[in-house]
Amino acid sequence: RINGERLWESLMEMAKIGPGIAGGNNRQTLTDEDSEGRHLFQKWCTAAGCTMGVDEIGNMFARREGTDPDALPVYVGSHLDTQPTGGKYDGVLGVLGGLEVIRTLNDLDIKTKHPIVVTNWTNEEGTRYAPAMLASGVFAGKHTLDWANDRVDANGKRFGDELERIGWKGPEKVGDRKMYAFFELHIEQGPILEAEGKDIGVVTHGQGLRWIECTVTGKESHTGSTPMHMRKNAGRGLALVTELVHEIAMKNQPGAVGAIGHIDVYPNSRNVIPGKVVFTVDMRTHLLDKLNAMVAEFKERAPQLCADIGVDFSCEIVGQFDPPAFDEGCVKAVRDAAERLGYSHMDIISGAGHDACWINDMYPTAMIMCPCVDGLSHHEAEEISPEWAAAGTDVLFHAVVETAGI
Amino acid sequence: RINGERLWESLMEMAKIGPGIAGGNNRQTLTDEDSEGRHLFQKWCTAAGCTMGVDEIGNMFARREGTDPDALPVYVGSHLDTQPTGGKYDGVLGVLGGLEVIRTLNDLDIKTKHPIVVTNWTNEEGTRYAPAMLASGVFAGKHTLDWANDRVDANGKRFGDELERIGWKGPEKVGDRKMYAFFELHIEQGPILEAEGKDIGVVTHGQGLRWIECTVTGKESHTGSTPMHMRKNAGRGLALVTELVHEIAMKNQPGAVGAIGHIDVYPNSRNVIPGKVVFTVDMRTHLLDKLNAMVAEFKERAPQLCADIGVDFSCEIVGQFDPPAFDEGCVKAVRDAAERLGYSHMDIISGAGHDACWINDMYPTAMIMCPCVDGLSHHEAEEISPEWAAAGTDVLFHAVVETAGI
Ligand SMILES: NC(=O)NCCC(=O)O
Ligand SMILES: NC(=O)NCCC(=O)O
Repeated sequence: RINGERLWESLMEMAKIGPGIAGGNNRQTLTDEDSEGRHLFQKWCTAAGCTMGVDEIGNMFARREGTDPDALPVYVGSHLDTQPTGGKYDGVLGVLGGLEVIRTLNDLDIKTKHPIVVTNWTNEEGTRYAPAMLASGVFAGKHTLDWANDRVDANGKRFGDELERIGWKGPEKVGDRKMYAFFELHIEQGPILEAEGKDIGVVTHGQGLRWIECTVTGKESHTGSTPMHMRKNAGRGLALVTELVHEIAMKNQPGAVGAIGHIDVYPNSRNVIPGKVVFTVDMRTHLLDKLNAMVAEFKERAPQLCADIGVDFSCEIVGQFDPPAFDEGCVKAVRDAAERLGYSHMDIISGAGHDACWINDMYPTAMIMCPCVDGLSHHEAEEISPEWAAAGTDVLFHAVVETAGI
Repeated sequence: RINGERLWESLMEMAKIGPGIAGGNNRQTLTDEDSEGRHLFQKWCTAAGCTMGVDEIGNMFARREGTDPDALPVYVGSHLDTQPTGGKYDGVLGVLGGLEVIRTLNDLDIKTKHPIVVTNWTNEEGTRYAPAMLASGVFAGKHTLDWANDRVDANGKRFGDELERIGWKGPEKVGDRKMYAFFELHIEQGPILEAEGKDIGVVTHGQGLRWIECTVTGKESHTGSTPMHMRKNAGRGLALVTELVHEIAMKNQPGAVGAIGHIDVYPNSRNVIPGKVVFTVDMRTHLLDKLNAMVAEFKERAPQLCADIGVDFSCEIVGQFDPPAFDEGCVKAVRDAAERLGYSHMDIISGAGHDACWINDMYPTAMIMCPCVDGLSHHEAEEISPEWAAAGTDVLFHAVVETAGI
């Protein structure tokens, strides 16, 4: 068994970096706080006897040697970056859970055949720089490094410049590593495990995602002196599209979701009719055909709704992944570990995207989920119990050691 | 007749300060650009032989002496601040038109009985600091100076601090002046005069306004892993209220308007369901009873619409004025001047709020409007012709001289 108290202490220690305003965290990617969190993680890894590699996109790889010099490493990990008003566990549990695996191996003086590498993937959240899972996506060949470096945040700052600024652009070529397997422990971020009273979610599949960045263009003009019939109000386009997204998600139940999280209004003045609104639609479901049909319906109806009120609509996909099916062998290793340890468990579909979804395209991959209170995530009040964290990390430990061999 | 070329040159000169990104202006109140515009105006006034008074809220008063030491001054003017993506004429024409009246009196060596004072009212637009017409409102006793100084902008900067920072907090007590009359020349900001082919709008009334700041509170959570039935999406509250505002305005035709110009979404992240949206509804019409009924219907239905989708709604009035009826004597002076000068004219209701609306509550007041292209205002492409500007200023000159006496 892993050391649950030590794991919890490390989680609380990391949560001191980039504190939020309501008990959670604001440690967005490529900020000074992100850098500080990385330094702390590096310090802990070095103390645990690991060597650290950093690649050109800032992905961190802490390695504990194995006994077989020819064996590929088993990778574990997740991400340390957070939402602007994020929780203390989303991503962090998977990284520090991986570190706890190493610490426990040290405690027990166990040598594994395969090396074990704990990763911190850069910019998983995708808030500051779309798309999400950007750096694991470059690692898996989904995007080029140049394209990633050219992403800009809301203030026009380039990804590549910010990575250099915080000092975490490493020398290693991105993707220049081969994996024997990859395991990611993560909080569920949804309500199912808690409702079913299970300690462990064995993740067999994930939802696919489409992020559709939309621009509604009207004409800015005076809210007082422009007669109603002369208005081209882009804000009304946003309103109609918001309800369209909801309608499409509802009619694709069960298991589909849709919402608009990010909205920018121009010029955003109380007495100016919005001339332009830019926003991102997030649509997901675990069936690829259904996902494509939802997007097709959206792309057909949104322009029409906008045309009916005299405003223009255009859109472009700015983030996407198809529903992943995880590796049967790795999934079985997780299920067997939970069973052996006596934890209640169930198979589950991941509602969120994870770095594991990209790595799964290249190497045998699986995920372990633990419950979170009220299914709440991407909220500062995100909460888990120390027992849930320990159970998930126990299962991670056993699945990893089983896979890495002794 | 006034000197139309000189007037136009001054308009173009002022437009160089705080240029926009598309040919208009961004000279928002209490910015460095606002200060620069004020210095230019002061320089011109001094050159025209005026003395300058500045009050504690930054209102500027350029005075040309009259011949009767006991006579109260006739005031003319408007504002030099602009929208973030504003035009070159909204407000500016009224201030520089007033200056042109003085310059023409100098040219013709005319001495008026009453002094003439040209004003630049601080923060008319209300974009950076709600409400609009803030400083003329304090002058007219609608708000206290302390309350005005405590307004904060989107970055948390206090009005009073910013006024001191740009160096335009004057010594004079606000409202410590008596007026014989007040005339404001302004572009129409609507399409009526152009459509009717009239040079001059004789403003008899104005629309009343209510700015209703609304907060919809849901619960931020993950866009992917939160099932549809567990969502409290504040963005949907915004959508439903946007359409409600439109519906209420449409059913109160003719002569009512409504829209939402300013929207802030929290935390505004692509994969977080909006937990809170704050936005301002702008509703107007020229009939007080109708205006009150529109607001009452809004306040009754908006909370219900939000409750139906599981989000909370609250609101507060952050700006308001009742429909003004301008002084019959001053209105007649404007109409007679237009007639005498041979300009085509019509009576008109102002769609926008103006400093004149507040001053009208204290002293005899009237407004003169000139057309603007396509009725477009609060847009960088706002445009008028030099001929329209000259005609409006001619009428202003004659109404003012008639009132001030020779
Ligand atoms: N786990 C997580 O929140 N990842 C961010 C990408 C997503 O929105 O699913
Ligand atoms: N004239 C003008 O645009 N004033 C700002 C106040 C308003 O919104 O009517």
